[in-house]
Amino acid sequence: MNVNGTPLKSIRIDANAHRVWVLDQRLLPYTVKEVELNCAEDAISAITDMTVRGAPLIGVVGAAGLALSTLASRKEDRLRSIAKHLIKSRPTAINLAWAVNKTLTAVLDQPEGKRTKTAWSTAREILEMELDMSHKIGLAGVELISKIHQKVQRPVSILTHCNAGWLATVDYGTATAPIYEAWEKKIPIEVLVDETRPRLQGTLTAWELSSHGVPVKLITDSAGGLLMTQGKVDLVITGADRIAANGDTANKIGTYLKALAAADNNIPFYVAAPNSTFDWATAAGNDIPIEERAGDEIRRIRGLNSRGSISEIAITSKDTKVLNPGFDITPSRLITGFITESGVFKPSELAKLRNL
Amino acid sequence: MNVNGTPLKSIRIDANAHRVWVLDQRLLPYTVKEVELNCAEDAISAITDMTVRGAPLIGVVGAAGLALSTLASRKEDRLRSIAKHLIKSRPTAINLAWAVNKTLTAVLDQPEGKRTKTAWSTAREILEMELDMSHKIGLAGVELISKIHQKVQRPVSILTHCNAGWLATVDYGTATAPIYEAWEKKIPIEVLVDETRPRLQGTLTAWELSSHGVPVKLITDSAGGLLMTQGKVDLVITGADRIAANGDTANKIGTYLKALAAADNNIPFYVAAPNSTFDWATAAGNDIPIEERAGDEIRRIRGLNSRGSISEIAITSKDTKVLNPGFDITPSRLITGFITESGVFKPSELAKLRNL
Repeated sequence: MNVNGTPLKSIRIDANAHRVWVLDQRLLPYTVKEVELNCAEDAISAITDMTVRGAPLIGVVGAAGLALSTLASRKEDRLRSIAKHLIKSRPTAINLAWAVNKTLTAVLDQPEGKRTKTAWSTAREILEMELDMSHKIGLAGVELISKIHQKVQRPVSILTHCNAGWLATVDYGTATAPIYEAWEKKIPIEVLVDETRPRLQGTLTAWELSSHGVPVKLITDSAGGLLMTQGKVDLVITGADRIAANGDTANKIGTYLKALAAADNNIPFYVAAPNSTFDWATAAGNDIPIEERAGDEIRRIRGLNSRGSISEIAITSKDTKVLNPGFDITPSRLITGFITESGVFKPSELAKLRNL
Repeated sequence: MNVNGTPLKSIRIDANAHRVWVLDQRLLPYTVKEVELNCAEDAISAITDMTVRGAPLIGVVGAAGLALSTLASRKEDRLRSIAKHLIKSRPTAINLAWAVNKTLTAVLDQPEGKRTKTAWSTAREILEMELDMSHKIGLAGVELISKIHQKVQRPVSILTHCNAGWLATVDYGTATAPIYEAWEKKIPIEVLVDETRPRLQGTLTAWELSSHGVPVKLITDSAGGLLMTQGKVDLVITGADRIAANGDTANKIGTYLKALAAADNNIPFYVAAPNSTFDWATAAGNDIPIEERAGDEIRRIRGLNSRGSISEIAITSKDTKVLNPGFDITPSRLITGFITESGVFKPSELAKLRNL
């Protein structure tokens, strides 16, 4: 998407020149800076230290990391070891293991002399697959926005939570893909973005949408309910971290509260996610483990100080006890539908998606 | 209540020595500091610059301000003018106008020679009334906690939002009064406190409860829903800014989302507030105006920097558009009952309270 007129992607791979660049997301939304990854270890650090974030993007970085490693060695033992380290850098990310293993298999199928070329073309192919996935989600979802616009005949107000934007994928995003597509098609829209404490990923979403030109307003995580009762929200679209077979959806903490408010006000609530997010082996939301994250995410907040430097403040004493669950489960009864690269499915239609 | 073993109140009035002290709440939860108010202008500043906050407390400060002014002049014109300025210092606070007018009427009923004494005794009386109100809310509410404890036979987990604590009253608070009373009666409890963005008043609640010894955990405004689905909340108690005749309740933004989650999980949801919060002239929640507050409350966050000084950081650029409604309306259908100084009333029983 554009950042003030300049097209940017979260990752660039030049498969011929054997070069990889990623945006340093730790500096966003304050500073836009690309950094080059020069070896597999750079890719591992970028994942571990949150230079890159978002499951689809992390997968591409993993594949690129393995491609970079072929510049140093094309020996099977060495490649297997690097792949293992890459996967370990974010063990919960299913995409990462999938992308690294796909690249490794393709590479090891080749004699040593062809491994570098294969690695780079596979990494590039995975990047294109992610791009295509996001784009198709956008095309499926924009129909929903267009129908609402025909009905309300004024800008469609869309609420989203956290960052399921292009920063978390290669481009377009998941929850934001229908939004960018609507913008492309000149359907008038406005986006309300939950700031998403504790890590404030909503500020990234607000930054990427407004940098592309999409009208956006940042709100607290508490405000969406009132705005829905006031008729100021036409549609909710969020991403998902994992979707159980019955449609129960694990997503960033707070998603469930917005789904409750949407249901209470008859506002459609959609989850946008690639098919790979569906975990058919998990029957229902109760079976999805919820990660308890570090307490300092609540106690401390990062931002720009008065001198314009990124710094942290403490909002409470360091011995204040906190509870910091990272995700919640939105039961499928509160979800209007799932926007995927294969189309839009109601919770009752998930068997169709599963059998595709 | 106690702060690490020392009893503290939000305001102290010595009616004989003609002296008034308040806690400087702008420094909390980082620094505990009492400041003396020496004249009516000090009282006006304390209200305007948020040294004091909370409707019940502001009323007492207003009365004390008028008492202080009698030390300079006991002339009717002068007293009426001071009263007007005091009321104007927070025009939305119904308590403030009530307390200042009550003091003014009592004072003007007396000859000039007796006005100072009357002003101070009236201010002191208003302080005692507020104390008594909070204490009675505590006694009414503790019965609910005690019944839950008899049922669950483990510590009762109570969720609250914002600060309806002793800092906002003279002592005990409103939503926190039943909690302090339960603690007094040695009923095992734990309190989950929403941080309450944008102004983070939850950090004040967590500070005052933990300083008194009550077990407390600070959570984000998004976490309560998940915790309710996990059985980690037995009861919700919040305060109220205004309650319509049908029981619809205006309170700090985010209250509605917690009420929805409580209803979805069959968890009792109570509103604790003095009788004076009921606005019988307003039929329903739709008629209560919602204040839109400054955008910088969202864009900027206050806390302690690495050198231990209170400072602000920006979490988003200053041209980011925001929507910042200060309150939301919880419909009475989601409210189990109202805890008042006259007892506990279901929404369907409000006619009884109105006719008391």
